[in-house]
Amino acid sequence: MAAFSSTRTVRIEWGDCDPAGIIFYPRYFEIFDASTTLLFERALGMKKLGMYKNFEFAGIPLVRTRARFLKPTRFGDDVTVKSEIEFGTSSFEVEHKLSLDGVTCVECSEKRVWVIRDGNGRFKSHPVPEAVLARFRS
Amino acid sequence: MAAFSSTRTVRIEWGDCDPAGIIFYPRYFEIFDASTTLLFERALGMKKLGMYKNFEFAGIPLVRTRARFLKPTRFGDDVTVKSEIEFGTSSFEVEHKLSLDGVTCVECSEKRVWVIRDGNGRFKSHPVPEAVLARFRS
Amino acid sequence: MAAFSSTRTVRIEWGDCDPAGIIFYPRYFEIFDASTTLLFERALGMKKLGMYKNFEFAGIPLVRTRARFLKPTRFGDDVTVKSEIEFGTSSFEVEHKLSLDGVTCVECSEKRVWVIRDGNGRFKSHPVPEAVLARFRS
Amino acid sequence: MAAFSSTRTVRIEWGDCDPAGIIFYPRYFEIFDASTTLLFERALGMKKLGMYKNFEFAGIPLVRTRARFLKPTRFGDDVTVKSEIEFGTSSFEVEHKLSLDGVTCVECSEKRVWVIRDGNGRFKSHPVPEAVLARFRS
Repeated sequence: MAAFSSTRTVRIEWGDCDPAGIIFYPRYFEIFDASTTLLFERALGMKKLGMYKNFEFAGIPLVRTRARFLKPTRFGDDVTVKSEIEFGTSSFEVEHKLSLDGVTCVECSEKRVWVIRDGNGRFKSHPVPEAVLARFRS
Repeated sequence: MAAFSSTRTVRIEWGDCDPAGIIFYPRYFEIFDASTTLLFERALGMKKLGMYKNFEFAGIPLVRTRARFLKPTRFGDDVTVKSEIEFGTSSFEVEHKLSLDGVTCVECSEKRVWVIRDGNGRFKSHPVPEAVLARFRS
Repeated sequence: MAAFSSTRTVRIEWGDCDPAGIIFYPRYFEIFDASTTLLFERALGMKKLGMYKNFEFAGIPLVRTRARFLKPTRFGDDVTVKSEIEFGTSSFEVEHKLSLDGVTCVECSEKRVWVIRDGNGRFKSHPVPEAVLARFRS
Repeated sequence: MAAFSSTRTVRIEWGDCDPAGIIFYPRYFEIFDASTTLLFERALGMKKLGMYKNFEFAGIPLVRTRARFLKPTRFGDDVTVKSEIEFGTSSFEVEHKLSLDGVTCVECSEKRVWVIRDGNGRFKSHPVPEAVLARFRS
């Protein structure tokens, strides 16, 4: 399957930045989490709430993330986030590249799993539904 | 009923502060929310998760808050938060006073309601259970 | 002076919401802070960083806020924030109205002061520069 | 040099958790950032503000982080964070292990650099001062 990608612009806000005047790095992960959500929204044509209603689905928790911070960003910066997904069976990887004026500032690779709730309400991994995969292919 | 109060110490962290070097004020509301939770934990002898299990309870959403910011705080400051509660019927008010070295920095007054879920899963206000009030009195 | 206003749309994100499935209210203040910043950006034709360079300016710290929470919002909601400013001498008030599909969800009134740094690097209030006021009037 | 380590307890708060009822993972990075700060505070006997005053120092920005999420944590959990540092020349690595009741929930490895400001106010890496290293050794 070819990789599906999604691009958006995000404003780095004053409140995202620390006393050094640059972004406080946990804010990048808030940005990346929302970018992954948006990627699904664009592929599936529904918001996350719709995913709960339309699929056997209890979330896409992160199991691993890796990020490299190449250049700091500052309040007022309008950064571009390009997110690209590749599916395994129950898991998938998303690569995020955050750039400013064409220069890469952060690279992040995350691995997530599609989970459902078992009989006791606990999360367990589950193959990504074929109906979901089909939308990413089209 | 005499007011019940609870005091705790909170470290203002680097990541709570903005490029002016002082706390980004929404962080105060994170501190106050946790302070209200702790106040219930101390009065009831159980964590918030226990409240869901032991009472007809779906949360204590905020309906109104007011805060005055008298003096800024900075990363590394260990501030004291004193929280005092007074109950109405379904609602209650919590006054938070955040101070540093005995000097008041922020005063906040919040009004919340005790809610349960109605038949459609929506929140509706409900009198604070007598068993809860009794614990705050003792 | 007639009030100057600014309107924007904000997506409520998954990570803005709490285990009750609704927005964790301190996130509203992050939204309002960024809305006030944007209001200045639109009136002045420059970002906040530009304000530091072009005016005697060290920030617009909050001295008081009041908010009423009328209806909860949820992840995936695209809310509208209308912000309206009125100036005093060194201080100003901003009214934020956050709505979803035309229904008001939160009303917030904040009072801020224009500050500069005194000789010791401490904040002190200062009249809002006439050059700033002129831009809001035009 | 033997590794220096620091352990602390952190309460996972309601507002740290998302609609799935578990922690929203960017909050872990806020916890780890504060844990690294505390590690320096304990080794140096001074807060971060003191580091700016006592050393040629402009921060310890992150250049790379990797984290594995093994088990979710929930509001009300009091987790233990053990942080261990090893120094290179201008850079250092911190390993954080976050556990609940003795079970590891998150493992994180971060690489940071000691930076100073160059003549134009930009960050540049700089060898960790010997006076700092000496404190970690003792």
